[in-house]
Amino acid sequence: MTRTVEPRVLKGFRDFLPEEEAQRSFLLRKIAESFELCGFVPLQTPALEYHDILTGKYGEEGEKLLYCFKDHGNRTVALRYDLTVPLARVVAQHRDLPRPFKRYQIGTVWRAEKPAHGRFREFVQCDADIVGSSSPIADAECIAAGMIALEALGVDFEVRIGHRGVLNAVLEAHGISDIGVQLAALRAIDKAEKIGWEGVLRLLSDLVSVEKAEAVIARIRQASEDLAQKERVAAEGVVRHVKSVVEALEVYGFGNRIRVDFSIARGLDYYTGTVFETFLRDLPSVGSVMSGGRYDALTKLFGEEDWPAVGLSIGVDRLLSALRELGLLPNVLTGPLVIVCPVGADSVAFALAVVALLRKASIASEIVPDESWRLKKALQYASRRKARFAAIVGTEEVQAKTVALKDLLLGEQKSVGLGEIVLEIQRAVVQGG
Amino acid sequence: MTRTVEPRVLKGFRDFLPEEEAQRSFLLRKIAESFELCGFVPLQTPALEYHDILTGKYGEEGEKLLYCFKDHGNRTVALRYDLTVPLARVVAQHRDLPRPFKRYQIGTVWRAEKPAHGRFREFVQCDADIVGSSSPIADAECIAAGMIALEALGVDFEVRIGHRGVLNAVLEAHGISDIGVQLAALRAIDKAEKIGWEGVLRLLSDLVSVEKAEAVIARIRQASEDLAQKERVAAEGVVRHVKSVVEALEVYGFGNRIRVDFSIARGLDYYTGTVFETFLRDLPSVGSVMSGGRYDALTKLFGEEDWPAVGLSIGVDRLLSALRELGLLPNVLTGPLVIVCPVGADSVAFALAVVALLRKASIASEIVPDESWRLKKALQYASRRKARFAAIVGTEEVQAKTVALKDLLLGEQKSVGLGEIVLEIQRAVVQGG
Repeated sequence: MTRTVEPRVLKGFRDFLPEEEAQRSFLLRKIAESFELCGFVPLQTPALEYHDILTGKYGEEGEKLLYCFKDHGNRTVALRYDLTVPLARVVAQHRDLPRPFKRYQIGTVWRAEKPAHGRFREFVQCDADIVGSSSPIADAECIAAGMIALEALGVDFEVRIGHRGVLNAVLEAHGISDIGVQLAALRAIDKAEKIGWEGVLRLLSDLVSVEKAEAVIARIRQASEDLAQKERVAAEGVVRHVKSVVEALEVYGFGNRIRVDFSIARGLDYYTGTVFETFLRDLPSVGSVMSGGRYDALTKLFGEEDWPAVGLSIGVDRLLSALRELGLLPNVLTGPLVIVCPVGADSVAFALAVVALLRKASIASEIVPDESWRLKKALQYASRRKARFAAIVGTEEVQAKTVALKDLLLGEQKSVGLGEIVLEIQRAVVQGG
Repeated sequence: MTRTVEPRVLKGFRDFLPEEEAQRSFLLRKIAESFELCGFVPLQTPALEYHDILTGKYGEEGEKLLYCFKDHGNRTVALRYDLTVPLARVVAQHRDLPRPFKRYQIGTVWRAEKPAHGRFREFVQCDADIVGSSSPIADAECIAAGMIALEALGVDFEVRIGHRGVLNAVLEAHGISDIGVQLAALRAIDKAEKIGWEGVLRLLSDLVSVEKAEAVIARIRQASEDLAQKERVAAEGVVRHVKSVVEALEVYGFGNRIRVDFSIARGLDYYTGTVFETFLRDLPSVGSVMSGGRYDALTKLFGEEDWPAVGLSIGVDRLLSALRELGLLPNVLTGPLVIVCPVGADSVAFALAVVALLRKASIASEIVPDESWRLKKALQYASRRKARFAAIVGTEEVQAKTVALKDLLLGEQKSVGLGEIVLEIQRAVVQGG
């Protein structure tokens, strides 16, 4: 037990120290509240799943990123890659859940990506999904829940809504009908925001001829305005569906926050219908902060009937860093409001009694963690912890049953009787903000 | 993508369906609030750590339970086994943290244990620790934070407080001075609550002679009352420390909830001083629901100075199942308060507007997930979701700008104008509880 090990974390993994973690908790709580406001109920699933539960759903690229290993019982297991496939597993497994099943889940997922600025191997997803309804109302409900969360956080944003059916119709119309090639093409189109349409052209040209690739791209880029006759027929139901989603969101009051954009593809194989991404108007460069779509065939992979489903996922890391950059993160208090500082060993018991009194009144407080500290050190600690008050307790205070209450924000100090201390602190906090 | 996979979870892992997850969230929120009330600040660390960060800390038995594997970069990594060793790593790595560092962490840990009733391979720990103070006040602060959490949850309990120093003195006095044998003996003594003292005798007899084992056990069982002269000298500082912890807890008002019990050992190798366990007076059979102790040498293993530390961990699973058995879990509402039911396609837009109105007033609500449903099906869904109200909207209501508000609890229905619906619902909820 004496070997020394260098303290370090794995690349792409992170510690969240108290100030950052308090802000993250604030954000996650806002999101959870918004989801609950919209009728979504909480679910949790294991971090580890049987490997075969996760395979065959994310596409080749995604599957390579699974953290996969043999457990003590020689079972092949993997850390979850997202929260959507576990949801499909839950719905197939627990057949007594109310259908449609409307759940949210906030949880960590793991992907062995190449770490880069803003890309991590461990991160939190906030998902809201409805399983068991093919109605456009369900699409609108998921998107609305996410929008309410984003509005609660004070950002300005635009949700771009597309549909896999339109893209498939365009690909079919250009003679690209092999499923594997179609999925690869969709993954290429999905990268448009990141690598530009020239980049997409390069990727598509590996799959089909350059001419065809150019034609497909041109078609998609103008598809939001009009659809050619042949594609229109194939995509008619699709267009009606998107229209209904948009209309519902307009009634919800989000008309100025949505745009139909049929070039939105999404990278994962399991999407089958509506797909959407969300960009911050004041900081589009962070990429999509909220995305999702319809995946009507996922539960079938678990031998379950074909439950149509739609879902939304908020990317916490991007959103947090954007909020920070935009100055929209509130100063969340980390640490106690009051630190009680006994001066001398004889004052410790009285100091503890003061702490007990404050805590009974729900005032976050603590005694300095070492009763032998001198006052100067205790006050330094109190200001380092960003406490608003230091309650100093010496022999005099013990006898008079008072505390010397020092307001570290205003720099004032006064003697306060034990009976008035709670009120005094509450008053100062309300006044001082 | 057409292979069918049986939906299932790994043994020892669990899905938490909405009602259970809502209760878990309630419990975790109460615990977090109690920790914050006592001045602890939040921290998060990665689920995966380098394997060598975790080894050499838990003892042989513990180390075998690590989920360990090679990642994509051929690094040996492991899922965290507890939150204490990662904390020691954080303190050694981030040298600019305020010292003493007083943090809490609520997080999942993984242990490849043999699954049994109440024992899982994936579970949540709620930890509060103070790193950088050797004062008994720090011990008392951790224990008090846990006690405040347990009181907030309404359970009756007793914290049994011991000290490794006393046990070590007894072992030394009986000539057991090899560190390895001492640690094995402590792990055996730790099992007393589970396997009885006869069981401990059997385990100890594998380490030392039966006579010695019997003498050690007899000594420990009466050590709480008196200490023999020789051991008293070795354990004097130790006894003074425990006395100070107890006195601080008495001032905090917890005098009737603590008992000194020097047979408490704790199973993990890293404890060096105070150790404690907590039993529910109304349900002692669930075992310890809150435990911890002092571990003054852990940060040294990361090449850091020797930061004395003390911590507490609440076992969420045991506590939850005990609360459930004792009938102390509140009915946490899962699902929306109001479900709006449009009758006919023409009413959908108005129904959506009603939902938007309710959400603006922070009333959790939703439209039925499929607008084509007939009223009977919509009302069945509303009652299945345990909504308090169904707001029915048909052609008549759309024209009159009203809703037929059905109170599913009282079975009453009345027509309410759009301007009064929020107030009407708020009034009914306040009255009806």
